[in-house]
Amino acid sequence: MATAYPHPMQPAMYAEQRVRLAKELRSQGAGHAAVFQGGTEVPVNSSDTSYLFRQESYYEYLFGYSTPDCFGAVLASGHSIVFIPRLPASYAVWMGELPTCENIRELLQVNEVKYVDELAATLTSHNVEAIHVMSGVNSDSGLQVLRAFFDGIENFNVIDTFLYRALATQRLTKTDLEKEVLKYVCRVSSNAHIHVMQSCKPGMSQHQLESLFLHHVYFHGGCRRVSYTCICATGHHGAVLHYPNNDAPVEDGGMALLDMGGEYRCYASDITCSFPVNGKFTENQRKIYNAVLEAHDAVLRQLKAGINWVDMHRLALRIMCGRLLEAGILQNATVDELMAHQIMRLFQPHGMGHLIGLDVHDVGGYLDNSPARPEAADCCKLRTARDLEAGYYVTVEPGCYFNHTLLAAAFQDAAIKNFLNEDLIRSTFWNFGGVRIESDVLITEDGAINFTVVPRTVEEIEATMSGQAFNGAVVTHKNI
Amino acid sequence: MATAYPHPMQPAMYAEQRVRLAKELRSQGAGHAAVFQGGTEVPVNSSDTSYLFRQESYYEYLFGYSTPDCFGAVLASGHSIVFIPRLPASYAVWMGELPTCENIRELLQVNEVKYVDELAATLTSHNVEAIHVMSGVNSDSGLQVLRAFFDGIENFNVIDTFLYRALATQRLTKTDLEKEVLKYVCRVSSNAHIHVMQSCKPGMSQHQLESLFLHHVYFHGGCRRVSYTCICATGHHGAVLHYPNNDAPVEDGGMALLDMGGEYRCYASDITCSFPVNGKFTENQRKIYNAVLEAHDAVLRQLKAGINWVDMHRLALRIMCGRLLEAGILQNATVDELMAHQIMRLFQPHGMGHLIGLDVHDVGGYLDNSPARPEAADCCKLRTARDLEAGYYVTVEPGCYFNHTLLAAAFQDAAIKNFLNEDLIRSTFWNFGGVRIESDVLITEDGAINFTVVPRTVEEIEATMSGQAFNGAVVTHKNI
Repeated sequence: MATAYPHPMQPAMYAEQRVRLAKELRSQGAGHAAVFQGGTEVPVNSSDTSYLFRQESYYEYLFGYSTPDCFGAVLASGHSIVFIPRLPASYAVWMGELPTCENIRELLQVNEVKYVDELAATLTSHNVEAIHVMSGVNSDSGLQVLRAFFDGIENFNVIDTFLYRALATQRLTKTDLEKEVLKYVCRVSSNAHIHVMQSCKPGMSQHQLESLFLHHVYFHGGCRRVSYTCICATGHHGAVLHYPNNDAPVEDGGMALLDMGGEYRCYASDITCSFPVNGKFTENQRKIYNAVLEAHDAVLRQLKAGINWVDMHRLALRIMCGRLLEAGILQNATVDELMAHQIMRLFQPHGMGHLIGLDVHDVGGYLDNSPARPEAADCCKLRTARDLEAGYYVTVEPGCYFNHTLLAAAFQDAAIKNFLNEDLIRSTFWNFGGVRIESDVLITEDGAINFTVVPRTVEEIEATMSGQAFNGAVVTHKNI
Repeated sequence: MATAYPHPMQPAMYAEQRVRLAKELRSQGAGHAAVFQGGTEVPVNSSDTSYLFRQESYYEYLFGYSTPDCFGAVLASGHSIVFIPRLPASYAVWMGELPTCENIRELLQVNEVKYVDELAATLTSHNVEAIHVMSGVNSDSGLQVLRAFFDGIENFNVIDTFLYRALATQRLTKTDLEKEVLKYVCRVSSNAHIHVMQSCKPGMSQHQLESLFLHHVYFHGGCRRVSYTCICATGHHGAVLHYPNNDAPVEDGGMALLDMGGEYRCYASDITCSFPVNGKFTENQRKIYNAVLEAHDAVLRQLKAGINWVDMHRLALRIMCGRLLEAGILQNATVDELMAHQIMRLFQPHGMGHLIGLDVHDVGGYLDNSPARPEAADCCKLRTARDLEAGYYVTVEPGCYFNHTLLAAAFQDAAIKNFLNEDLIRSTFWNFGGVRIESDVLITEDGAINFTVVPRTVEEIEATMSGQAFNGAVVTHKNI
């Protein structure tokens, strides 16, 4: 299985992740096993083409095998089994020589590889009596996770109340080998952002910025896929949070807000860079940009194990609120009063960051044993309200936008309109778009490590866009 | 709706396509309408990311509107209506200002735009009594086409026996404006193939060839998507027909077989180029390549309205059979005898080409009123057995492979093994991989127009790979 991909995945990573799960399983009983169903190819409508296969993340997490229609089992004993579909020999004509079970066992370094049609019998041969299956709702999508179902499942005591919470919780804390992969994909994506920044010129089309990014992460980094559809907003599109089209011209004088992250072997990155498309900040662009950067950096100087995520969100909002007040965009109140009126929901209508890992919005944000979603209008979009622990991996992504929909409504809202300088906003900032600064950050006992290596200060951005090489490095923050 | 995309789509194209359908509908009765359901976003497993939205092809064909969750209707009168989902105003924060019905009506130049929840009432207001819905199985995928279902459908006489055949048949014959789009996307993809060919060097990885192609068609041509997953096979992988991985090193001395096509606004291209990765053909590579090229060119010199597709397939096989006999790879029989033994199924185990249009394997190949799939082992993979008509658009893609699975079985088959020079194949061609030459071709009354503009002869390929510009053009064949 020679590969020319740049970052070899280590079977030991998945093995450690299975060992952690097996340990949890032993709390349930000796004859217990967890059984997982992997993903299936998804056809494009009724045609005979398919979307590029993406393995289901829980399956990938444990077995690291991106092949459709597989199952897998982890026994309380620690024994691990992958089950592959029994394909007709004729498939080899179209798909290449079919690997044997032994080939795959060696590749994945699991204990056994069997065919899917042997699943029930194999579990029985290992004296499995109770099987745990996934059952739960992803709190970001509202979708049910994939629940394993196979012929013969009725022979077992099926338990669906334990596994989802156990494994989603486990995925919160990254293993050391996972950290290496996440650092790799973040660096690949950082480099691609720098390349796009240096290539961006007024007169291009937004889709060309997307194309440059996609090519850079795949060609140089082996990321065949991105973690989410690239957001390549420029000018007033920057205020549209999930700008989906990327098909407008890049107009001189505007800001670019590029939210793009490569995915490597299912591991995500999620980086946003904001910069003036012509390479030089105007005074107003600098003002908004530095407000967001100050918020970003303040959070990075606070993060460590034990810190609460909602507090970090509020910290970022508060800093930006002060700067908007100084800029005369907000008025007629103190920061405390403005925050009490939840005014920042108008300027940053999203959470300050989220868990990230195998999914870009990683699992475990809200489980039945974790803090509930905050209700306040300026916090309710957060994807988790947890206290952070060492090994958590999060994005830090404050943003400040001039969103037409939100501001136009606010100008009509008697409770808050006097806090907004409508004349200034309409005359000067209406088509500003927005700024978001997003980094991927590992939480440690005493601080945080920022895996994102891109120009962040106004000076760094202007120098990089003028053609200078950017020599950044991963920064470790000690926040004692 | 400013766009920086390079080839503007003309609303008149979709309008003509609706007019053609309305004319067919009038054969059914004055109060008849065809109702279509568009595609939906597809989540990636249970996460909150989605695959990049791809509109359902029949919907796109008639309305040219690549937005999820829409419906559309074409009335026998020719009146056309698009139905859009009624989104909450808050969506504007995330997705940008929501277009009004009137915005979309102007954009699409349909007669009316309404909300989906007004579908039944709108049809009733137009005195529609019977509605036709799609119902049928795509003969390439085996999947049911999307059948419209909406609130209030029970108020109508629903007919599912007419529309699928009528519209699949209609899509066979491309309109003049469709031909322009198909020519455009084929040229974009041709240029990208040339770029990849000129960039290819031993020591690269296959995935880098894919990345170069994806970038070229998107950056320069606005193709955000490809028509199918790129096949970037080199060396012995070239014999794997749907080589899916593209993750092996490009090794010196081998052939590359690159099957890649951009998709522009849902219109497909499908081009294969085969060339030596180091830019110079060996004698054996030249021999196999020229056998396939001769077959490709012979078909192009025969194609015109009235020609039968199975005959073209057999023509290509026969030519390659003769060249394999001359090369000593086949032996102990005449071409007629070898063809009678269907020996070429071993070397080209796929159809010589297929319909192409909005789908890469376009619809209408086998309908209940068209010729049935041939049964012979060397023809049964063909995706249509039709007589061609002017306006049909097809790929011409003969290939010759040294497929281990097929050949190893044949060496054991008493009925045919004496026709194969096993010693020569094993000693010289076993890891050859394969050659495929695939062009996208429009059928005319008296010939064919090859929209594919890439180096095809050995001399053209070697010159292009040495860095010379390739100055090709669309070639019109008069085959009277």
